[in-house]
Amino acid sequence: MDNNLLILAPVAGILGLLFAAFLASKISKAEAGNDRMKEIAGYIHEGAMAFLTREYKTLAVFIVVVIIVVGLLINVYTALAFLAGAVFSIGAGYFGMQVATKANVRTANAAQHGQNKALEIAFSGGAVMGMSVAGLGLLGVGLFYLIFKDASIVTGFGLGASSIALFARVGGGIFTKAADVGADLVGKVEAGIPEDDPRNPAVIADNVGDNVGDVAGMGADLFESYCGAIISAVTLGAVVYASGEGVLYTLLLSAVGIVASIIGSLFVRGDEKANPHKALKNGTYVGSIIVLAGAGILSYVLFAGDLKPFFAVASGLIVGTLIGQITEVYTSADFKHVKKIAKQSETGPATTIISGLAVGMYSTMMPILFIAIAILLSFYITGGTENAQEIAKGLYGIALAAVGMLSTTGLTVAVDAYGPIADNAGGIAEMSGLPHSVREVTDKLDSVGNTTAAIGKGFAIGSAALTALALFASYSQAVQLTTIDLLTPMVLVGVLLGGMLPFLFGAMTMEAVGKAANQMIEEVRRQFKEIPGIMEGTGKPDYRKCVDISTGAALKEMVLPGVLAVVIPLVVGILLGPAALGGLIAGAVVTGVLMAIQMSNSGGAWDNAKKYIETGAHGGKGSPTHQAAVIGDTVGDPFKDTSGPSMNILIKLMTIVSLVFAPVFLKYGGLLLNILK
Amino acid sequence: MDNNLLILAPVAGILGLLFAAFLASKISKAEAGNDRMKEIAGYIHEGAMAFLTREYKTLAVFIVVVIIVVGLLINVYTALAFLAGAVFSIGAGYFGMQVATKANVRTANAAQHGQNKALEIAFSGGAVMGMSVAGLGLLGVGLFYLIFKDASIVTGFGLGASSIALFARVGGGIFTKAADVGADLVGKVEAGIPEDDPRNPAVIADNVGDNVGDVAGMGADLFESYCGAIISAVTLGAVVYASGEGVLYTLLLSAVGIVASIIGSLFVRGDEKANPHKALKNGTYVGSIIVLAGAGILSYVLFAGDLKPFFAVASGLIVGTLIGQITEVYTSADFKHVKKIAKQSETGPATTIISGLAVGMYSTMMPILFIAIAILLSFYITGGTENAQEIAKGLYGIALAAVGMLSTTGLTVAVDAYGPIADNAGGIAEMSGLPHSVREVTDKLDSVGNTTAAIGKGFAIGSAALTALALFASYSQAVQLTTIDLLTPMVLVGVLLGGMLPFLFGAMTMEAVGKAANQMIEEVRRQFKEIPGIMEGTGKPDYRKCVDISTGAALKEMVLPGVLAVVIPLVVGILLGPAALGGLIAGAVVTGVLMAIQMSNSGGAWDNAKKYIETGAHGGKGSPTHQAAVIGDTVGDPFKDTSGPSMNILIKLMTIVSLVFAPVFLKYGGLLLNILK
Repeated sequence: MDNNLLILAPVAGILGLLFAAFLASKISKAEAGNDRMKEIAGYIHEGAMAFLTREYKTLAVFIVVVIIVVGLLINVYTALAFLAGAVFSIGAGYFGMQVATKANVRTANAAQHGQNKALEIAFSGGAVMGMSVAGLGLLGVGLFYLIFKDASIVTGFGLGASSIALFARVGGGIFTKAADVGADLVGKVEAGIPEDDPRNPAVIADNVGDNVGDVAGMGADLFESYCGAIISAVTLGAVVYASGEGVLYTLLLSAVGIVASIIGSLFVRGDEKANPHKALKNGTYVGSIIVLAGAGILSYVLFAGDLKPFFAVASGLIVGTLIGQITEVYTSADFKHVKKIAKQSETGPATTIISGLAVGMYSTMMPILFIAIAILLSFYITGGTENAQEIAKGLYGIALAAVGMLSTTGLTVAVDAYGPIADNAGGIAEMSGLPHSVREVTDKLDSVGNTTAAIGKGFAIGSAALTALALFASYSQAVQLTTIDLLTPMVLVGVLLGGMLPFLFGAMTMEAVGKAANQMIEEVRRQFKEIPGIMEGTGKPDYRKCVDISTGAALKEMVLPGVLAVVIPLVVGILLGPAALGGLIAGAVVTGVLMAIQMSNSGGAWDNAKKYIETGAHGGKGSPTHQAAVIGDTVGDPFKDTSGPSMNILIKLMTIVSLVFAPVFLKYGGLLLNILK
Repeated sequence: MDNNLLILAPVAGILGLLFAAFLASKISKAEAGNDRMKEIAGYIHEGAMAFLTREYKTLAVFIVVVIIVVGLLINVYTALAFLAGAVFSIGAGYFGMQVATKANVRTANAAQHGQNKALEIAFSGGAVMGMSVAGLGLLGVGLFYLIFKDASIVTGFGLGASSIALFARVGGGIFTKAADVGADLVGKVEAGIPEDDPRNPAVIADNVGDNVGDVAGMGADLFESYCGAIISAVTLGAVVYASGEGVLYTLLLSAVGIVASIIGSLFVRGDEKANPHKALKNGTYVGSIIVLAGAGILSYVLFAGDLKPFFAVASGLIVGTLIGQITEVYTSADFKHVKKIAKQSETGPATTIISGLAVGMYSTMMPILFIAIAILLSFYITGGTENAQEIAKGLYGIALAAVGMLSTTGLTVAVDAYGPIADNAGGIAEMSGLPHSVREVTDKLDSVGNTTAAIGKGFAIGSAALTALALFASYSQAVQLTTIDLLTPMVLVGVLLGGMLPFLFGAMTMEAVGKAANQMIEEVRRQFKEIPGIMEGTGKPDYRKCVDISTGAALKEMVLPGVLAVVIPLVVGILLGPAALGGLIAGAVVTGVLMAIQMSNSGGAWDNAKKYIETGAHGGKGSPTHQAAVIGDTVGDPFKDTSGPSMNILIKLMTIVSLVFAPVFLKYGGLLLNILK
């Protein structure tokens, strides 16, 4: 194999970054609108950047501690890779957020000149985040592999990406939902002012939340999935193909993915009257087709005419798309499930909740079946057998399926991040008193964004499952386990404990949102009472204070779950041994994926049931049925935007912690086991 | 070993039944009160018996089909054992219910003469159910083992018990919650009449529901756990100890358990002023101590001075008690969690739901830790090692822990079934206009019943987990698997699919309650509108119609989940092979146990938060906080009384189906796997 070709991976990464920079400058040059718009956008920008800065400062302590631990227990190169992974993740978040908080006001301004102009700016804003994620990811992984030619060091990069992702998702999720619930409960319900009203002190925090949760948090999530999938395929590829094709195929495929994402994004343009969803879908389809073609050609060339690796990639890409589609069935008002929740809201909030929970539970079935099919196909197609010597072949196939699913991450993130930008644009339009027609345009873009967000979440979950399983396979290699046997008590106990962790994690994050929202509620009530003229629009609300509360609460509450996710695998690995830790990972993956699907889809379905009623069904806005649906939506907020999405990262982070610290478990693992014996 | 001693097992079973008969005749002889009381009790009795009769008729078809399938695919003796298991389970339910629906009115009557008299009758009623369950269970398992000396045939008995249990739990759960929600939503909320008001057409169905759900359903649940634990210990004991001590120890221990339960139940008596909870606890402690003593002596005698099996039994019994205690912490208003939910209800139903769900999720942590400890202790104490040859030793230890936990099933069921009898007594007192002091006595007994029910549920879940794991171990022996390796794709896929099933099952049962409740709501509304004078008490509501609706809906909705639980293991075993089926069982056990704990405890916590507010906290009855808590309680109804408890049975039934059909999987398993290869 000509390993010089490996250089193409970081090159493609840089290409992605250049494209992101190009888009960013295009956005910067666009007109930002009138002074009022600039003022409001300034508050949002400032709040978002302040949150990120404080978040990263908090994380600095964590990063330093992990660097020392990894440096001492593993080696200094892995510690360096960890630092790079963390810094790259932070960099992607920071840059993407900078641009997203510029794109929002420019989208609002462009919406005055029509839907297409607005779509272009909003999507470009999302694409900056997307291309930064993919570009920095492939640049980092590619460079570290190129320099060290050692997959175990590159794993450190994944650990850095994963740790930042967890904090970003949990912190961002708490921030956004505390602000959202606080703004809604006091502003809309108690004071009776509309959404995005500038008199509401929490309104800026709410808009900041869309950015830090749905743009930065989601970006960090996919950054780690993307890196994790590539790392696991590189690890397993190196085992299976001694002469390097396995690694090379993975990295070149990812390079093709970046090029495909760039080309795909150029196809996101529709005519003025068409549904913007069509434009977004066009781009995604073009990107996927290019990746499929590239994967086929690369497979044929690198593996001497063998198309098996290509089929594994294709199965991942297809299953990812199917999961996205089925997510839409369960969360869109065009289908029966959401309509059923709306109907059940007629008998009050209890039946809204029961039916929404049931829909979420039902919605786990098809994605799990799809994931199961992807596992079996990609394993057996690539020639895997259950023979201990040959199993790595099939596991490499599973990793390739994950890489395939994530190859167009640049596009996926772009489509996903475009939603909150459009949402923000609507808020800015409302607050700066732009004509109603502007809001109509942004609303249309936003509502498409809700669907694409649901699809993106399904995609993130599917890819997280495959990535975690591929990393799990790499872990077993690293700790030299040829079996992780469910018939041994240690593995059984591991599976039980691991299965419990997503429940614990879900409880912690849900409670965190509750606590933070309560603080926000009290602050908004206080401002309404104490600031003279606030209701008449003559007194100015203290937006900054509300942003501070969300920031403080989010940073405080993200620490414990984040630290637990890192510490628990270490403790279990050392006390109960590597086999128990293997069981822990498997258990956590299973319940984590299930809860992620259930929570995201219940939340999405409640949200859309409420919106469906607001279109006039079952009595429309303000009816008791609507009130019941609003309660469902409020319960769904932490489900779909905090706890649910955090599960993805939890399972990947725990897996990668186990992988990085494998040498420690090999040496010291199973202390308690030895005592029991 | 002197295998003649085996006869002591069925003898102890008969002893238990004789004691049940003695208690039943004592209850029959007690005074049933005035004519109005007898009339109302008659409706309840008639409704409950009518439900059981129709349920058993529906099940007859299922039983016949399974007999044919088992007879053809396995052998005729196993089919016979299946029939016996089903008939014994039905018999226990029928007899227990007969007596419970006599005890309720006699408890109400006795309550006129003081708390102690009422406690005695209510507890005796529960003890009839308890001793029938334990007596018939040990009689059946003991006899079949004595006759055939083949554990695989006895497994058929377990299959019979499990199938009936699933239908009884699901059907009973749907019946009781449909009636409860229907009676509450229309009667209490819409019409504004109090609970247990005879003008409410659904009031009899509601009281019938307490019997068919909480007495018969729960009895069938523990009947199968009890039989399952003994069967798994017998299966594994036969493997480990070729000369029969393993089997003998299991059966004699269970015999001691029945004697201990009889003696323990004699200690359930308090003085007039004391908390009835104390009397119930006294009985349980006495029973447990006798079992511990017996387990120690038997271990010493049968295993030539070796106390290791005793320690395994003790670990199970202690962990079962601890799980019960921790359940109380999460579901009783004496502790912070329930108080927090009550406090969160101040900001409306959304925060009630979020905090209740979070409490349920948190509450999984300690029970899982306890179960993990029990597994490790009982495995390693009995000399298990992870060596493939020696693993059975440790697995036998785990099975013994389950047998230990369930040895006093007679008492556990008695304490659990006493609650709904006291609840029914209160309803009868209310409807027949007895003085308020009578209701106070029954309310006190009932409120203790709520706590014991929560503890009993925790106990049922813990024992189900251990039983399922022990049966899982037996399954692996039966299909000749020495490993079930999480690193193979088939097992991974099995675990994912298995983990999903409790979510699917939860969705189905929750929706079933919703549908049935809707029918009930419409019928009650219709009667209020169409029957003249119903509100004035001159027109007579059509109780029977409401009972019919609950019955019809329950029987219709129980079929699909019940059939799925039997069919899915068969399909997976045949298509994907025994290893994938092993994964399926493990995955289902993990998420099933977690969801059972979460749902039961969330439901219990919501219920008690509402009751806590009703004592005057946070604004008391009728306040907005109370209304929010009522919504939480309504969501909790299907959680704690339908979906949650059904999970226990689902996982045990799927395991035992796999065990019984092991020969089929050995011969035909893995069709799809062969195609993929």
